[in-house]
Amino acid sequence: MADINFEAILKDIKPTETEKKRVMELSNELIKNLNETAASIGAEAEAVLVGSVAKSTWLAGKADIDIFMEFSLETEESYLKRCGLKLGHNCIKTMGGTAEERYASHPYVTGSIEGYEVDFVPCYYIEDASQLKSAVDRTILHTQYIKKHLKRDQADEVLLLKRFMECVGTYGSEFKVGGFSGYLCELMVLEYGSFMGVLEAASTSWRYGQVIDLENYGTAELFKDPMVAVDPVDKNRNVAAALGLQKMSEFVVASTNFLENPSESYFYPKDMVFDSGSIKEEFTERGTKTFILTFHPPNIPADAVYPQIRKTEKSIVKVAEKNGFEVAGSDSWTDEGHRAMILVEFETWKLPHMKKHMGPQIWFKEHQERFLEKYSGKAWVEGDRWVVEVPRTYESVESFFQGVLIPKKINYLRFGKHIKAEILKEHSVVDMKDFLEFTWDDEVLRFLHLYLNKNELLCR
Amino acid sequence: MADINFEAILKDIKPTETEKKRVMELSNELIKNLNETAASIGAEAEAVLVGSVAKSTWLAGKADIDIFMEFSLETEESYLKRCGLKLGHNCIKTMGGTAEERYASHPYVTGSIEGYEVDFVPCYYIEDASQLKSAVDRTILHTQYIKKHLKRDQADEVLLLKRFMECVGTYGSEFKVGGFSGYLCELMVLEYGSFMGVLEAASTSWRYGQVIDLENYGTAELFKDPMVAVDPVDKNRNVAAALGLQKMSEFVVASTNFLENPSESYFYPKDMVFDSGSIKEEFTERGTKTFILTFHPPNIPADAVYPQIRKTEKSIVKVAEKNGFEVAGSDSWTDEGHRAMILVEFETWKLPHMKKHMGPQIWFKEHQERFLEKYSGKAWVEGDRWVVEVPRTYESVESFFQGVLIPKKINYLRFGKHIKAEILKEHSVVDMKDFLEFTWDDEVLRFLHLYLNKNELLCR
Repeated sequence: MADINFEAILKDIKPTETEKKRVMELSNELIKNLNETAASIGAEAEAVLVGSVAKSTWLAGKADIDIFMEFSLETEESYLKRCGLKLGHNCIKTMGGTAEERYASHPYVTGSIEGYEVDFVPCYYIEDASQLKSAVDRTILHTQYIKKHLKRDQADEVLLLKRFMECVGTYGSEFKVGGFSGYLCELMVLEYGSFMGVLEAASTSWRYGQVIDLENYGTAELFKDPMVAVDPVDKNRNVAAALGLQKMSEFVVASTNFLENPSESYFYPKDMVFDSGSIKEEFTERGTKTFILTFHPPNIPADAVYPQIRKTEKSIVKVAEKNGFEVAGSDSWTDEGHRAMILVEFETWKLPHMKKHMGPQIWFKEHQERFLEKYSGKAWVEGDRWVVEVPRTYESVESFFQGVLIPKKINYLRFGKHIKAEILKEHSVVDMKDFLEFTWDDEVLRFLHLYLNKNELLCR
Repeated sequence: MADINFEAILKDIKPTETEKKRVMELSNELIKNLNETAASIGAEAEAVLVGSVAKSTWLAGKADIDIFMEFSLETEESYLKRCGLKLGHNCIKTMGGTAEERYASHPYVTGSIEGYEVDFVPCYYIEDASQLKSAVDRTILHTQYIKKHLKRDQADEVLLLKRFMECVGTYGSEFKVGGFSGYLCELMVLEYGSFMGVLEAASTSWRYGQVIDLENYGTAELFKDPMVAVDPVDKNRNVAAALGLQKMSEFVVASTNFLENPSESYFYPKDMVFDSGSIKEEFTERGTKTFILTFHPPNIPADAVYPQIRKTEKSIVKVAEKNGFEVAGSDSWTDEGHRAMILVEFETWKLPHMKKHMGPQIWFKEHQERFLEKYSGKAWVEGDRWVVEVPRTYESVESFFQGVLIPKKINYLRFGKHIKAEILKEHSVVDMKDFLEFTWDDEVLRFLHLYLNKNELLCR
């Protein structure tokens, strides 16, 4: 492990003194503005800096400034929201930024100010989790906890861990990734002491249902998740609730790979070699048949669109298999703006035009009447059930897609109405071979390359 | 129902007075011969007539004469066997017949005498089932029970039932059929009074697990079979043990069909229209792909060969499905002499050359070592398991058959060594289309026709 020059890596990923100074100065200026405005309109609110900037755990060039505006617990909620948004908007305006209102568990305003993304979030001032009124209130407690417990040199360990996670593709608790949140990374460093400590634990001792319980609350059994990190500021919350088994496993594998064969390249984007030609070749070699369904993603927040697209993907796979088409794999992708894609790879894509259809048992005459009327003379007996051959609804995958993605049939698929509306408005289903003839978009090719090479990011 | 002329049917299926006289005279002559010989050699044995001839329930032209030679319970078993076989052989010789020794629960000798098949079976003389020494001893009790309880005119009802069963394909408790035995038909007539009574009960009130318990022993729960007919002479035996759900259901359906649309044609072989051309057309229309495996049946008794062929059929289907080939249906046939055939109809018969192979979980390093060594760099993670793509052993059904029916591989299939030896000696696997080009054998075509038209015999 002596080979790895962590100092050199940190030099690349740690904010420079200039960046730090600039971010802190801007943050202080914003807070001053908010507090002055609050005082001037008689609002009892206090702005505080939270998140990775407050904790000094942000990666170079990636400072997102999070400012929470604390109102006392007695404040009426509607007033808190109205006043909080107003203060935020006013601050952004004063600073010459552009504003966009968003909604998490309650509304907030995001400003783009001097090249930084700044969130202004109204919240209640609480002293501990028992006073929680909404999920955002907890953020302040998180910030306090990390500032109090994370030693100065451990902030570097958090940076190394976040960067490693980013480069192997397991960082981010949003639905797009389903991986590790920044706060979870910080807790892991507290638990295992250092970046290397985290990787060694993940590689050698982690199991399904792994527990991290820094404050020894003993409440881990409340949760059934693949990983349980009891929130040090709220024993009834699992910080790792959004972490899927897939990303947890990928991190374990990447940790093992790194420890077996350490390389600084794990802290830099992987150099992947692919083009539409190599991808086409790989798909052809597999001997399967792959289709791409393309449509416009609905205009809803990213954290809502990913689960919906995934649900659509799963539902198409399920209904295709119910219709007799064996599915080898599937995946989905969106640029969160103009295009969403669902890839389905088929092991069988043509089927005989007849299929067996199981009917009622032979014992109860009244249950059989309608069945035998319908299939008179064609049904036969297997065991004690009637069976009949009926024409298959879809003999090919092409006819399946044509058949189910139309107004009358789309409701057999179980996914959100937003995506259904978009698909009905416009979509295309294209054989991968044809798709690759007119696809040069690097992001799309990257998605296809990673579908074909699922291990790609986990090793160097 | 007034339409059905049962008298006319009985005229065709009931033995003529001439036949009856001839059978009874021959039977008496055989018994006399056996008893005289026994006396002359000092054997304490008494020959008795049993079975359908004794019960007057045989169908015209189908008299099988069953003669049991009763020895007292004190007789040593080896003496009983030796002496019984000797008496049988001597009798056959005297009568100018040809003999063949067979083996059920103990050995017996069958003679072909004046065109009749005669079984000579040594057994113990018992007064009730508690004294049973072997399964054959029970036959005498059965004969006595039926002779005592079946009314004179009910014998005709038994004949109608047996004949109906024969013509709809549900008669016979041997493994080839898995249907109703003659004794079970007799018990059903006792239970329901008449042929029509049996059909009405089957059609309207039978259920899975149907119980017939003439002597009200209340022991039906001892059995888990689709139908339980408690033996009136042995409360611990289910007379319907050999009846499969399939044949039971077919009889229920045929009964309903007959009652809904009665016709004398149910008592005569069905006139079926087919030839290799029509069969080929039907197979082609289905859009599936069907193969016929042909081999020499092993030289073992028919009641052993059928279960073995069926086991072979089921095993081939199971292993084919395990290899990814969807099976639409299967069946088997043998002439019990020179040819056995297994038919497998495939829904999918070509597969991509790669397939997913699930590996160990990612948590335990020691479990993964060998797997990762073998597939280094090619495996990826799904959930918390390693997955890898491996070349499929068989990409086509043709290569599957070629691959598994060879010495090194045939043991993956679970069936008897007799059939394995025969298949290894010689077999052919032919596509149905090609098979039908050189198949004129009416029995084989009938088998294929009934495979395609499973309901054929159940309705007229």
